[in-house]
Amino acid sequence: MIRVTIWNEFIHEQQEEAVRALYPDGIHGALASGLRTDDLRFECVTMDDPDQGLSEAVLNRTDVLVYWAHWGHARMEDVNVRRAAECVRNGMGLVVLHSGHYSKLFQTLCGTTCALEWRAVGEKERVWCVAPDHPIAEGVPQTFVVPHSEMYGEPFDIPEDAKPVFMSWFEGGNVFRSGITLKRGFGRIFYFEPGHEKYPIFYQPEVLRVIGNAVRWAAPRYRGVHTTPKVENLEPIRTE
Amino acid sequence: MIRVTIWNEFIHEQQEEAVRALYPDGIHGALASGLRTDDLRFECVTMDDPDQGLSEAVLNRTDVLVYWAHWGHARMEDVNVRRAAECVRNGMGLVVLHSGHYSKLFQTLCGTTCALEWRAVGEKERVWCVAPDHPIAEGVPQTFVVPHSEMYGEPFDIPEDAKPVFMSWFEGGNVFRSGITLKRGFGRIFYFEPGHEKYPIFYQPEVLRVIGNAVRWAAPRYRGVHTTPKVENLEPIRTE
Amino acid sequence: MIRVTIWNEFIHEQQEEAVRALYPDGIHGALASGLRTDDLRFECVTMDDPDQGLSEAVLNRTDVLVYWAHWGHARMEDVNVRRAAECVRNGMGLVVLHSGHYSKLFQTLCGTTCALEWRAVGEKERVWCVAPDHPIAEGVPQTFVVPHSEMYGEPFDIPEDAKPVFMSWFEGGNVFRSGITLKRGFGRIFYFEPGHEKYPIFYQPEVLRVIGNAVRWAAPRYRGVHTTPKVENLEPIRTE
Amino acid sequence: MIRVTIWNEFIHEQQEEAVRALYPDGIHGALASGLRTDDLRFECVTMDDPDQGLSEAVLNRTDVLVYWAHWGHARMEDVNVRRAAECVRNGMGLVVLHSGHYSKLFQTLCGTTCALEWRAVGEKERVWCVAPDHPIAEGVPQTFVVPHSEMYGEPFDIPEDAKPVFMSWFEGGNVFRSGITLKRGFGRIFYFEPGHEKYPIFYQPEVLRVIGNAVRWAAPRYRGVHTTPKVENLEPIRTE
Repeated sequence: MIRVTIWNEFIHEQQEEAVRALYPDGIHGALASGLRTDDLRFECVTMDDPDQGLSEAVLNRTDVLVYWAHWGHARMEDVNVRRAAECVRNGMGLVVLHSGHYSKLFQTLCGTTCALEWRAVGEKERVWCVAPDHPIAEGVPQTFVVPHSEMYGEPFDIPEDAKPVFMSWFEGGNVFRSGITLKRGFGRIFYFEPGHEKYPIFYQPEVLRVIGNAVRWAAPRYRGVHTTPKVENLEPIRTE
Repeated sequence: MIRVTIWNEFIHEQQEEAVRALYPDGIHGALASGLRTDDLRFECVTMDDPDQGLSEAVLNRTDVLVYWAHWGHARMEDVNVRRAAECVRNGMGLVVLHSGHYSKLFQTLCGTTCALEWRAVGEKERVWCVAPDHPIAEGVPQTFVVPHSEMYGEPFDIPEDAKPVFMSWFEGGNVFRSGITLKRGFGRIFYFEPGHEKYPIFYQPEVLRVIGNAVRWAAPRYRGVHTTPKVENLEPIRTE
Repeated sequence: MIRVTIWNEFIHEQQEEAVRALYPDGIHGALASGLRTDDLRFECVTMDDPDQGLSEAVLNRTDVLVYWAHWGHARMEDVNVRRAAECVRNGMGLVVLHSGHYSKLFQTLCGTTCALEWRAVGEKERVWCVAPDHPIAEGVPQTFVVPHSEMYGEPFDIPEDAKPVFMSWFEGGNVFRSGITLKRGFGRIFYFEPGHEKYPIFYQPEVLRVIGNAVRWAAPRYRGVHTTPKVENLEPIRTE
Repeated sequence: MIRVTIWNEFIHEQQEEAVRALYPDGIHGALASGLRTDDLRFECVTMDDPDQGLSEAVLNRTDVLVYWAHWGHARMEDVNVRRAAECVRNGMGLVVLHSGHYSKLFQTLCGTTCALEWRAVGEKERVWCVAPDHPIAEGVPQTFVVPHSEMYGEPFDIPEDAKPVFMSWFEGGNVFRSGITLKRGFGRIFYFEPGHEKYPIFYQPEVLRVIGNAVRWAAPRYRGVHTTPKVENLEPIRTE
């Protein structure tokens, strides 16, 4: 049983009628519903929860954190971001969605700005799987369309060890590494670009399949802490 | 002319007689002397300087930051660390030495803890060049000895895109990726492990050669900022 | 002075009127003309030359090999391919163009099949620079169009250490990592996708700029051979 | 049930009394015995078998190929090497042992020479796990000794995407990336350095544990072939 915590900042749904209508239970509710299977157990938290949803208690009972954020990036407190980042390095999985690329949490783990170009006009997006043998690609068509999407375009300021699983074509001419995996410490991280709050993207079967696969892929197989211990020599030292 | 700023926290030299005797001008002074050539111009700063030595003024006139830190890691203020990290991502080169692996600056850029094992008994270290064609290896022997060193041992919690240029053998049985390159944004980063303050390591010709090479390798060829601009479509969008 | 050898299989130009009309001096002639600058010295060879153009003599006087191939892949003899691959590992630079992705030479160095999807209908291609600070991107617009191109699409079976410098958008909906760098031994390799023989792509200033930059980037800074020598111990061995 | 084929060139055991005494059933027999568990099914082949042990029939019933080779590298026929390499790219796992680093098979898949330094005097080797969370490291001590080993030392000419899981310290002063993972097409590859035929290394529990873990890690989760199909456009093309 994989314990999945879906963290959604939950600002748009509360401030924009159109988004609330689209996601009456919040993006987090839609994800929990859409991803529901016997092997996944869900908990939803938002920025309004204690420690902005990233409390020690919540993180301690989280195997994989799914993270959607947008307008609230600047309001995230360093102490909460650091706590979550440390959990990832200690083994907790992380699946970052859409505008979460610019979250302090994802930037902290990448070490880069994760900057990109964008355009929110609802253009068509075509997602391609570039690593068909990757577990995250299982059961996902070689290519699928997000009929209305927010364009995220290259250049994408991510580290060189970010491996592409999906790449996207946008009607307006842009391209993007839309699904990338990363490892930080013992934690597996997957970033997936589709997910603009104005469109029913989190109801799309292919999108849900990718996120579900990513959750299973990111689930910890190993947990540990990184320490800097003083150690004894195991081979003789003759140097004075 | 490459403008090199040597940042040294300058705590040991002021608190420990043995270190002061070894480095009367501070580690920074020794490095500036040892690296002095016609194409490098040096400025030295310490933690005692304004903004802990990482002020906007200093960083703006820095092409490559050389960074030695140890006891002062926790005292570095986030605002100063972030300013320096942003400069690296914008193109400033960074050469991190020895205990600087655990500095907030290096950890911030790596996104990992940079943890390792250690032992300070003055054992022998043998450094091997594993990438003889790398510019940082130019003029450096295939292998050289640091007669008395502080052991840093694997596992070293660094990102997968850290490429080894040097690897070390320690008399007490440990091994370590002792020279690694990394890229963050437009900035080139090199970490070099030898440099324990109790030994005359920064007077060693091979060590100085490596650091000098690293400074030249890390010097910016491109400077820019990472923004997330809204852009117009370059291809027609027919989707409503 | 960088000694550039342009290797073109020279089959299309001799067999297809349309291609001959477009490239009366062969693709190699057009490249040599288009890339001509004071710091580059060109030699052109084709499959019809001794040792299929990859003779010891030619390779010994080559700093960077530029390689365009298509129909002749299967006819390349292993001995010639191996000679060229060894030169790359020993430091010779390699710039592989378009259909050269499926050459024995490129496959040998990658270790992968370098397979991809394709469509030759002359659709529009938009090339994006995803690494603006890369030397190969110098003076190249952030994005440019190849008005008529042959689509090469993902998935592209290349090794994980292939770093993207350019990515392309194709009118028909595909995406592709259209400019990638790779290192094999001491040799720098760049693969660039645009260059279908039926279109005047090698007269396009942006394309020529990329290839010229790639030649300079790939020029050897170090040459060596890889041997497996038996060596003496440098530290005492007490084990019986 | 993972079908493991152990390929051993089987030259040393037949030509050297000391090796035959140590491995009366051949290195392959010792490995099959040592690795035997309920979930692994073994088949052993040698260079003396049809198609040098790498026949279509054998490969078709192989999930993971374990490969020990040394003196016979030059005698391996290209057609057999290519068949095996293709199977790896199509998903078959590969575990290469010791002197197999210089096999045509491993070189073909790496695209590099895989050259290194060596010394066969039976010195002590200390293996370190540098990726404790890796599946191949499961149940393996953080460090263990091979009492008598053949030294393999850096520089090791392997591709940049080879990720270290183990690194070794040798009594005579050398270091080496002694356990590395690589991906080629759909195939997972692990190279493990300990295994000189003159010592009982393949009876060592830690060594057997690593190899057993590697077999399970490398077992195919996906099989496919890499083709270069001509495809139809999925988005409208308006270009003439």
